[in-house]
Amino acid sequence: MATELFAFLAQYLTLSDEEKRTIIDLDIFHSFKKGAILLSEGERSEAEYFVMRGCLRRYYVIDGEEKTTAFYTEFESLSPQCVITKEPSKYYVACVEDSTLIVSKVSMEAEIFEKFPRFQRLCLLLSEDLLAKNQATLDDFKTSSPEQRYLNLLRARPDLAQRVPQHQLASYLGITPQSLSRIRKRIAEEVKA
Amino acid sequence: MATELFAFLAQYLTLSDEEKRTIIDLDIFHSFKKGAILLSEGERSEAEYFVMRGCLRRYYVIDGEEKTTAFYTEFESLSPQCVITKEPSKYYVACVEDSTLIVSKVSMEAEIFEKFPRFQRLCLLLSEDLLAKNQATLDDFKTSSPEQRYLNLLRARPDLAQRVPQHQLASYLGITPQSLSRIRKRIAEEVKA
Repeated sequence: MATELFAFLAQYLTLSDEEKRTIIDLDIFHSFKKGAILLSEGERSEAEYFVMRGCLRRYYVIDGEEKTTAFYTEFESLSPQCVITKEPSKYYVACVEDSTLIVSKVSMEAEIFEKFPRFQRLCLLLSEDLLAKNQATLDDFKTSSPEQRYLNLLRARPDLAQRVPQHQLASYLGITPQSLSRIRKRIAEEVKA
Repeated sequence: MATELFAFLAQYLTLSDEEKRTIIDLDIFHSFKKGAILLSEGERSEAEYFVMRGCLRRYYVIDGEEKTTAFYTEFESLSPQCVITKEPSKYYVACVEDSTLIVSKVSMEAEIFEKFPRFQRLCLLLSEDLLAKNQATLDDFKTSSPEQRYLNLLRARPDLAQRVPQHQLASYLGITPQSLSRIRKRIAEEVKA
């Protein structure tokens, strides 16, 4: 698992053996079962997540109905809003699959930055990437029709449509499961034609 | 202008006089006229913006029509996606009002980090805040009706509805100007009743 992490991080920074050892010593990998709820509405939390394997889902419960707003898969990170604002969470985070995650606590940050000063640079580079990605996600949602959104998703994250339940995917795309089913049928017919 | 900036940054870090002088020496404040286009579709750029006074708008031109996806006002920052990805921009950035901005170039970063090492910490704290804010914006857009979105905007950014043209605001909310006008009328009637 550590090897995969270092391969990913090498895109941003070349880590020394000592830095790698520091990371391994932190004992950051944790496994969770499919369905596990990591954060609930109303809860306070200090935990941030980075997906090594598996899939997380961020969702709200509004008038008794789940509204999925994001999925996180391999090498994606989630800093819940409530961790930054220090207020109770407005949403839930749950595992869509059995998942192995890096769990880090905000209170560990200072210690890590001290042991491993370049970690701050790494976090900044990761944050910048994430900001660019979030801009693209929001803009895609605002400027595309539901069918385009689904096609964009198939292009950008082809695995996701296979990995998550269709009703969660529909909610994520801002449409009903019936609409998603119609869109899929239409696309399948166009491919055949 | 520098005084306002330091007051804002004091929320995150207490700056020493020397650090403040380093920032002032960078000559980072720039003024732009209403309507100025800072970034165009297809352009490459290294420039990131922080609004001291005024308002920026991020928009796409799709089939000849402008689609506004974000506004940036006082103490908000915009790192265009193309700066991070190093690809041509997919969108435009323009001044909605006469604006005073901090313009920083990615290539200046290394120099600033060297002169002022805690700047990295500051950037990270600002990024984290921005990520939390972006999550909230995306989730609000995904989980709210157009009328709720407008009410949320009035609550969260009361000045915006007064500062930007109504057709841009409608586009930002993902509705037609006619729908926005109907929503405003309905709300005004409810307030009266």
